[in-house]
Amino acid sequence: MSRIYERVALIGLGLIASSMGHAIRRHGLAGHVAGHAKTAATREAALEIGFCQSVHASAAEAVKGADLVVLAVPVGAMGAVAAEIGPHLKPGATVTDVGSVKQAVVEAVGPHLPAHVHFVPGHPMAGTEHSGPHAGFATLFENRWTILTPLEAADPAAVARLKALWEGMGAKVAAMDPAHHDSVVAVVSHAPHLIAYTMVGVADHLAQVSNSEVIEYSAAGFRDFTRIAASDPTMWRDVFLTNREAVLDILGRFHEELFVLQRAIRMGDGPALFDYFTRTRAIRRGIIEAGQDTAAPDFGRGKVQP
Amino acid sequence: MSRIYERVALIGLGLIASSMGHAIRRHGLAGHVAGHAKTAATREAALEIGFCQSVHASAAEAVKGADLVVLAVPVGAMGAVAAEIGPHLKPGATVTDVGSVKQAVVEAVGPHLPAHVHFVPGHPMAGTEHSGPHAGFATLFENRWTILTPLEAADPAAVARLKALWEGMGAKVAAMDPAHHDSVVAVVSHAPHLIAYTMVGVADHLAQVSNSEVIEYSAAGFRDFTRIAASDPTMWRDVFLTNREAVLDILGRFHEELFVLQRAIRMGDGPALFDYFTRTRAIRRGIIEAGQDTAAPDFGRGKVQP
Repeated sequence: MSRIYERVALIGLGLIASSMGHAIRRHGLAGHVAGHAKTAATREAALEIGFCQSVHASAAEAVKGADLVVLAVPVGAMGAVAAEIGPHLKPGATVTDVGSVKQAVVEAVGPHLPAHVHFVPGHPMAGTEHSGPHAGFATLFENRWTILTPLEAADPAAVARLKALWEGMGAKVAAMDPAHHDSVVAVVSHAPHLIAYTMVGVADHLAQVSNSEVIEYSAAGFRDFTRIAASDPTMWRDVFLTNREAVLDILGRFHEELFVLQRAIRMGDGPALFDYFTRTRAIRRGIIEAGQDTAAPDFGRGKVQP
Repeated sequence: MSRIYERVALIGLGLIASSMGHAIRRHGLAGHVAGHAKTAATREAALEIGFCQSVHASAAEAVKGADLVVLAVPVGAMGAVAAEIGPHLKPGATVTDVGSVKQAVVEAVGPHLPAHVHFVPGHPMAGTEHSGPHAGFATLFENRWTILTPLEAADPAAVARLKALWEGMGAKVAAMDPAHHDSVVAVVSHAPHLIAYTMVGVADHLAQVSNSEVIEYSAAGFRDFTRIAASDPTMWRDVFLTNREAVLDILGRFHEELFVLQRAIRMGDGPALFDYFTRTRAIRRGIIEAGQDTAAPDFGRGKVQP
């Protein structure tokens, strides 16, 4: 793979940035990967693990001379970081981010960037429940979508270059409007996460079933929920605070729908339940056909195979 | 492994029974595995795949001479099957089941069984989203819990023998009261399944986000929900109809809890969200420590490993 940027600066060195560093270095997509994290321990880890070639105590210093700057801090911290780096950006540089919400990032970051840089917000739809610089790995983005949400005035060449970087890391890349992005992720990611957090919270304070029983007998349904509910609390707090309207809209519909099913259970309406559960099966088949998951039992966990 | 039963009869030949047949034969736990399913195609598949050594067109015929009879039909069908086989059971035989609900099975099956058999209800807490005779595999129960809910009058020797069978198939075995079992599974399995079904249903009829977008951009949270929501509709209909009170209790608490989080989002209460998400992380750690899941990113799916 050929070099796409000379110097990339990763601001924030958690799961996503460390995975980007690994992937960029593995595929030779940049001449140099610089990094900044607030804590010295994280900066040292980045150098030691090797996904950054240089680390810098301030974000302003890290972005100097970079032709790509990646904001990989929680959404709530993006505005402050943008204000700090704005005056130090190289003319013609591209600034992107990896936040899970796009309208809020556009509003928080945009005003701090000088006219001589290209701002192309982005969202890699990949992750695990682990966080921090040790959590990253080079294949995180492979065969996963990265959504870019360039504004109308964006330079097509700058967008194409960033797209090439993501494709170089193995991602599939789509472009859409920031508001539409926020609606899509409210459904496929944000509301499901909140619901998983809620269900795990309910289990946590039941009187008739002990916590140790919940943990010990955790079956497929609940076990999967707890994995989701183990994701980074800071990141998710910011997601819900900044994609508020879209998430509340989905949650409102969710309550209505759950009440319908709950009523069917209370009334003993078997046909209604059967029809509902049959419809939801079809969506699953669509996801497998779209290559977003495996049909192997139990997610293809090795130990359950025949 | 030594032989535990001479003749086992599997009534209903879906995911669980076919997995039992595979495991029993692999470990030599029975001299003969007989099977019954309603449709001829399923019976033929069972013979061809080889997890049954004989198949029978009626349940009454299949149980003849069996010292263990396993009812592996949907919970709603258990009573009728018990009525059919009751007069044909061998004196001293053990009858068990694999239903996800236990009080309803005790009530439906118990009255049809003669005094000269041992009834030991059971529930293997293992499964995948696939169903039917082709879905089974010998290692499904390995390192998973099977809960037995013997009644007070149960013969300890018959319970111990059934326990040995499950342990021979690799399961961990616990015993508890049927009512307590139903409370536990309402939390760790039934309510999470209903919630997953609901979330997938909400996504299915959104106007602003197309179904193809939901499928294409399906991220970790929603993707896991769709897997859960692809489970067998008949089985789950019966689960909700027969464990009604426990499930409705949990759903009531779930609504309350979700409203609390929803309010925190609407009010912009970041600290409340952060605290909540931090607490739920601890439960996840407990489950990994209890050996019920892997800490590998993305469930250890092969393709995302570094």
